[in-house]
Amino acid sequence: MKRTAMIGHLSPTHAGQTVTLQGWVNRRRDLGGLIFVELRDRSGMIQVQVEPDSPAFAQADRLRAEYVAEIEGMYQLRPESQRKGGVADYEVIASRVKVLNTAKTPPFELEKGAEVAEDIRLKYRYLDLRRPEMQRALMLRSRATAAVTAFLDGEGFVAVETPMLTRSTPEGARDFLVPSRLNPGEFYALPQSPQLFKQLLMIAGFDRYYQLARCFRDEDLRADRQPDFTQLDMEMSFVEQEDVLNLQERLLAHVFQTVLDVALPLPFPRLSYRDAMDRYGSDKPDLRFGMEFADVTTLFAGGEFAAFASAEAVKVLAAPELTRKQIDELERVAKQNGAKGLAWAKRSGEGFTGGISKFLTAQAASLLEQTGVQDGGILLFAAGEWKRAVTALGAVRLSLRDLFGLASAGPQFHVSWVTDFPQLEYDEDSATWTYMHHPFTAPHPDDVPLFGTERQSEIRAQAYDLVLNGFEIGGGSIRIHDPAVQEQMFAAISFTPEEARRQFGFFLDALESGTPPHGGIAWGFDRLVMVMSGATSIREVIAFPKNNRGADLMAQAPSFISTAQLEEVGLELAQE
Amino acid sequence: MKRTAMIGHLSPTHAGQTVTLQGWVNRRRDLGGLIFVELRDRSGMIQVQVEPDSPAFAQADRLRAEYVAEIEGMYQLRPESQRKGGVADYEVIASRVKVLNTAKTPPFELEKGAEVAEDIRLKYRYLDLRRPEMQRALMLRSRATAAVTAFLDGEGFVAVETPMLTRSTPEGARDFLVPSRLNPGEFYALPQSPQLFKQLLMIAGFDRYYQLARCFRDEDLRADRQPDFTQLDMEMSFVEQEDVLNLQERLLAHVFQTVLDVALPLPFPRLSYRDAMDRYGSDKPDLRFGMEFADVTTLFAGGEFAAFASAEAVKVLAAPELTRKQIDELERVAKQNGAKGLAWAKRSGEGFTGGISKFLTAQAASLLEQTGVQDGGILLFAAGEWKRAVTALGAVRLSLRDLFGLASAGPQFHVSWVTDFPQLEYDEDSATWTYMHHPFTAPHPDDVPLFGTERQSEIRAQAYDLVLNGFEIGGGSIRIHDPAVQEQMFAAISFTPEEARRQFGFFLDALESGTPPHGGIAWGFDRLVMVMSGATSIREVIAFPKNNRGADLMAQAPSFISTAQLEEVGLELAQE
Repeated sequence: MKRTAMIGHLSPTHAGQTVTLQGWVNRRRDLGGLIFVELRDRSGMIQVQVEPDSPAFAQADRLRAEYVAEIEGMYQLRPESQRKGGVADYEVIASRVKVLNTAKTPPFELEKGAEVAEDIRLKYRYLDLRRPEMQRALMLRSRATAAVTAFLDGEGFVAVETPMLTRSTPEGARDFLVPSRLNPGEFYALPQSPQLFKQLLMIAGFDRYYQLARCFRDEDLRADRQPDFTQLDMEMSFVEQEDVLNLQERLLAHVFQTVLDVALPLPFPRLSYRDAMDRYGSDKPDLRFGMEFADVTTLFAGGEFAAFASAEAVKVLAAPELTRKQIDELERVAKQNGAKGLAWAKRSGEGFTGGISKFLTAQAASLLEQTGVQDGGILLFAAGEWKRAVTALGAVRLSLRDLFGLASAGPQFHVSWVTDFPQLEYDEDSATWTYMHHPFTAPHPDDVPLFGTERQSEIRAQAYDLVLNGFEIGGGSIRIHDPAVQEQMFAAISFTPEEARRQFGFFLDALESGTPPHGGIAWGFDRLVMVMSGATSIREVIAFPKNNRGADLMAQAPSFISTAQLEEVGLELAQE
Repeated sequence: MKRTAMIGHLSPTHAGQTVTLQGWVNRRRDLGGLIFVELRDRSGMIQVQVEPDSPAFAQADRLRAEYVAEIEGMYQLRPESQRKGGVADYEVIASRVKVLNTAKTPPFELEKGAEVAEDIRLKYRYLDLRRPEMQRALMLRSRATAAVTAFLDGEGFVAVETPMLTRSTPEGARDFLVPSRLNPGEFYALPQSPQLFKQLLMIAGFDRYYQLARCFRDEDLRADRQPDFTQLDMEMSFVEQEDVLNLQERLLAHVFQTVLDVALPLPFPRLSYRDAMDRYGSDKPDLRFGMEFADVTTLFAGGEFAAFASAEAVKVLAAPELTRKQIDELERVAKQNGAKGLAWAKRSGEGFTGGISKFLTAQAASLLEQTGVQDGGILLFAAGEWKRAVTALGAVRLSLRDLFGLASAGPQFHVSWVTDFPQLEYDEDSATWTYMHHPFTAPHPDDVPLFGTERQSEIRAQAYDLVLNGFEIGGGSIRIHDPAVQEQMFAAISFTPEEARRQFGFFLDALESGTPPHGGIAWGFDRLVMVMSGATSIREVIAFPKNNRGADLMAQAPSFISTAQLEEVGLELAQE
């Protein structure tokens, strides 16, 4: 017998028809001599009723949780007293039941899966993945993959698979290494990203490239990192920043429309890096809600409150009423993020009480006007070196978001661009300049004359990040194609020609072989899908993720291997 | 300036228009004071003429081979004397030329790239990939990817990415290993295929799965192998073999239609493994041409020609006229493929001359009738143990194909199924039975009673291969979902329950947790694209392939790494 429909595709138009369904027993109950079976497939769930005199009864009586069954029966309305509207008003009266397979009693109840310890869920991932939430998330991911492919194929992008076994570049993040048996003592590295290869494809004349690329970084795993992850990687030739941004906007809008039926308003708002930091204290600001900082540096400059008087920046945000305990918690957050403290004051009528209120008398009217703080509300101040102050207050802003559920009042999805990142960063520890994005990112043409001057910190990169609900879901840049600019860039980061050649040898040869103007972007595909599906961890949108020790608890990887396997690749375990 | 069109998209409708093109200088010639530039992008090539008094002349004069240029000019018909019909009749008279980038003199002439040593091509792959043949092949691959994705998405398949860092299973082909830094002394393996994971996804209820999966096997590299390759991997639940085959036929037809505008006739012809071997001496017969074997075993059984009289099989094929040298060469092929020799005879009128003709007198009429050999043509015989005889003659058949270009007379593409593979193979060396496909392949239901009997070699697997022009481009099977059958299978290949658990532990747990009937297939995507594009090596359809020492000659991988990197993963190089 073939199934006549998937459960989720049944609708009132099937009423009165005999249907054949196949799926898993979600639950089986006995009531008044009848057997009730909830049958589940990836598309939905339905109640099946088996009457005691039905020829299906004997087989139905064998059913237990997670058995696989084929059920034929009449699709019909439930008794009027049980109807609530919608497809759940329909049930199937079984005329035939066939047990297609049995199942051991599951180690956890699937319906309570979300509460089960994650280690257990990962060990029995094949059961965990049966939960409708997990299936929905992975099916959403699949639809996003297909939508991306269709859009980019239609726009003339060429899908190219770049090497998985490539060269180790110890200068970046840590590589995963793969010993070569045919070349004893030598190693491949798994790719951290296809960055050089996608630029090579532009040099090779492919014009537009994309790939859903598996990437690998051997980092100490934080809560929401995976040793391997998926990038939607793209590159375009003969373009300027505006072309890349425009295409990306249309692509993301297409994905949201196709997958979620959500229309993203175009164009996406843009903030410069400076603006984003200055107003929201983050280079990936969550703009689903406001709570923008006011700049009150000049208001306090040279004043009597010593902590603010000579600060490079004094930033303030207006919070709702807070308890003393909440303020203490927010101060802890501010300190964790680099601030010396978190000054506060509570609005009371036209003045302030508590905290630093005694220093605010002269500024009260201005503060009320600039911040619009409500009566009873709290002003929170961060002061000091600009980047440190805004970063700390940015973290406080996100804590307030979580505390008051501020994001839920805004749009479900808010997308924006952050642009004009600095080209160079000064590293205090090594007292050297380094690249912020990567050494092939092109500077803004207007800023090229600043290389090697005292103002080189002001050079803006033609780099851009795509920000969704406070997550960086994409980042890219226009690349340098002019050898003269490349030389200036290497000089700025104190790379000698020899050093550059040692690190990037063959790529520099390629760059001199007829490189078109080009630029691109890579999306963190796991994170995008996570936000789209409403999940809170990328592990919820990856079928078989690793835990935070890098272990696959189901397949039990990594594992010890045989001495023979080690010998074949010419290696020994190091002695303690 | 933006380009107004890609070169290949220009057509007579653009005649008389000013166009802006961007691309590479394929060639620059000076003739009669004019400069002629062949400009190339991935879509095509066009001649650009720059007149001496043109404002574009000074810039055009800078152009050299492989420079990147932007050219604006009038698209118009060439002088009548130079027209040959088609778009090559059009040229661009430049009004503006801009050098977008220079290029070093290429180490080889791109137009002669196909004749350049492959090592050179691989070292400068970014130049090699500029060749139109390479671009066409990789663009074809990209279109095939998009066509597959669109079709499978439309058919309800869920794209799932399975782990790249997984568990080593030393029993199969050799794994590539990845040391784990977080778990010192332990290793991941790169996946040889997602076989277990795709079955787990069926157990998890995803119903239909696909993935363009990167797979890895650390084998000694033969001429046309890569250490990593791409599989189009698929699996379906609640299906029988017929369902899988039907869907695959529609998928492949869709890909050919979309990508090549070729209509594959449906359904594909099917041969059993036995038939394919018996008639063509191959389990992946090239059916673009006939040259089927005739079976003459009984004709010679017990006769006077000792070599044939007691042979298990005597097979013959009718070849065109051959020189003695050609016959010798074919005999060498037959011997290389396991035959003791290659008997032959030349038809002369109603009889035979040469070779073994003196033994054919009695059988001459029958041989003429059974083989239809032309006058002057040659009969080629292989005799002996059946599999050895047909295999050797199958290799001879392919040599004749190449010798006489027989395939070119047939359809450009011929697709067929080979089905009913044996479930079990007897390994003479170890005197044990082993699986032919893998231990989870389901036997034909009618043949299950043969397990453990003397006839277990006759058990047919529900396994199938997809064959295109003599290449196996896909292989799959219905999987065992019944634990009782799984036990019989393990017993047949002498796996104790302990052995089975050691090798497949978590997977066997999963199999007992509610496994639906399921089956699938994997396509060798590189090989499919190779055949579709008319290439003769998979390296021609892989952007950055390894050579036959597993080396990437461009990126210089693999390479030696630092002691610090080795120490981090707790390894040492083995002492000699």
